[in-house]
Amino acid sequence: MRLAELSERSGVPVPTIKYYLRERLLPPGRRVTATQAEYGPEHLRRLRLVRALLQVGRVPVAAAREVLAVAEDGDLDQHGKLGVALGALPQERPEVAEDDPAVVSATRVVTELTEALGWPPPGPAHPAAALHTLIAAVASLIRLGYPCELRHLLPYGRLAAELATHDLDVLEEYASATERLEAAVALTVLHEPVLLSLRRLGHGVESARRFGEG
Amino acid sequence: MRLAELSERSGVPVPTIKYYLRERLLPPGRRVTATQAEYGPEHLRRLRLVRALLQVGRVPVAAAREVLAVAEDGDLDQHGKLGVALGALPQERPEVAEDDPAVVSATRVVTELTEALGWPPPGPAHPAAALHTLIAAVASLIRLGYPCELRHLLPYGRLAAELATHDLDVLEEYASATERLEAAVALTVLHEPVLLSLRRLGHGVESARRFGEG
Repeated sequence: MRLAELSERSGVPVPTIKYYLRERLLPPGRRVTATQAEYGPEHLRRLRLVRALLQVGRVPVAAAREVLAVAEDGDLDQHGKLGVALGALPQERPEVAEDDPAVVSATRVVTELTEALGWPPPGPAHPAAALHTLIAAVASLIRLGYPCELRHLLPYGRLAAELATHDLDVLEEYASATERLEAAVALTVLHEPVLLSLRRLGHGVESARRFGEG
Repeated sequence: MRLAELSERSGVPVPTIKYYLRERLLPPGRRVTATQAEYGPEHLRRLRLVRALLQVGRVPVAAAREVLAVAEDGDLDQHGKLGVALGALPQERPEVAEDDPAVVSATRVVTELTEALGWPPPGPAHPAAALHTLIAAVASLIRLGYPCELRHLLPYGRLAAELATHDLDVLEEYASATERLEAAVALTVLHEPVLLSLRRLGHGVESARRFGEG
């Protein structure tokens, strides 16, 4: 299809598509004349992912480009690709001082937690940004004196592990490795607000059940 | 205790405490002389909550004041207080146009989901901001053509409900209603990065298990 049709079918305006092409968020089409190129279904799919990242996930252009470049890297196996792509997704990375006593305790609790979950010890299998964010968040809880022992965190870990299994099951429904990678990135980002809102709704329902006037 | 001791025991510098007092994030101490006031354990606890909101949760001062005001409102029952306090916590509220077909479908799926979970229909028991965010997030998934039927969302809903139950169990360990309210607000905010990082770590572990080279 030509650029105009790609725009119509994706709902993305032509100038925006041109911008994505310039920023290398979208691979170039196949040149057919000096001024025209032909686009395929892979461009439609990629546009969808770019919109998910930029508009919904608020991922900066440079980080999005890094995530997308992985899809085209022939040297990585599938797990490597997923790991690099998800690891490149930005997450807030609060400052962490390694000699801070709260950080030392947090690292210990997080190690206990991964052991209790039967996960490999923190290492290459774990996305580094996620591990960093987890330790920083647990350190905040400890510093503020909120309950943060293994028994408080374990239910979170168990449910996160169940969610991850469910997420990967959904991914496996995709036919090709590229589609799977694209869906992994999009669904990781798009499901985060779903999860947080559902938890807050659950608080409302459960609190009404326990403390409401019924 | 005097201001200096409050600062020392809380780890919050005196000028910061004075700022919190001016902004009515911290109730005034009991005047003992024209220039000195006496502070109690409730001030220590409140300072901890203010830090959780402002520094960790990045909640704006005005929203934090609104959340904290609820703790002192004698007219609300406990569920009402929890609801108002948690509802006042800022959440990203993406634009939602009610006649957008994706929003119409999203509202239908979310209603199916709350029914399937045995939750009351969307209404006063649900924090409005969370419901709004959920519908917007589901609408994004639908608009981008990602799988978003009841069977995809139900595992998220079930796990969120389990988490909410666990969270409320932890809250019930607090002795007084005020402490419980403070902990609810702090833990809602502080556990969100814990949950999201654990899910991303789970993706790494599960993907290594399925696609890794072993």
